[in-house]
Amino acid sequence: MAEDKTDNIVYIGKKPTMNYVLAVATQFNSGTSSVTIKARGKSISTAVDVAEIVRNRFIQDLKVDDIRISTEVLEGEEGKKSNVSSIEIFLKK
Amino acid sequence: MAEDKTDNIVYIGKKPTMNYVLAVATQFNSGTSSVTIKARGKSISTAVDVAEIVRNRFIQDLKVDDIRISTEVLEGEEGKKSNVSSIEIFLKK
Repeated sequence: MAEDKTDNIVYIGKKPTMNYVLAVATQFNSGTSSVTIKARGKSISTAVDVAEIVRNRFIQDLKVDDIRISTEVLEGEEGKKSNVSSIEIFLKK
Repeated sequence: MAEDKTDNIVYIGKKPTMNYVLAVATQFNSGTSSVTIKARGKSISTAVDVAEIVRNRFIQDLKVDDIRISTEVLEGEEGKKSNVSSIEIFLKK
């Protein structure tokens, strides 16, 4: 299992997928040995795309060290709470 | 790591999330000890939602045994190939 890390995290949002792919690839190419990709809700699919594209097209010897899923509670405008799923993908060279 | 299993697979598609939640919960309640949730592309987010909702609201002692991501090659109408990410979430009682 991967240890909890606070460095080298790439958060997936609504930008084009390739932006995040390049962000992850750049971190590895600058000497980092592990990067964590995090996403919530609908961005979870993009997070998996990013991990797969980096592995298949950019950094050959990359491994998926661990994948964790969880539920986060978001508080809306009127204090209304809603649950949203999240994912963490730990990539390691 | 989970072993490869061909039984007890729930494929996530475009139906309402709760349909899949009930499909997974029903399998566990009928005595099954492991269920695999599979999804591709945009349905990956729904797959994580399904796993989290079953774990948090339906089956208390459920564990995420393993999560795997991969890339599948789909052939389009004119023989054009495209890559799509996929996820497998292995749940275990």
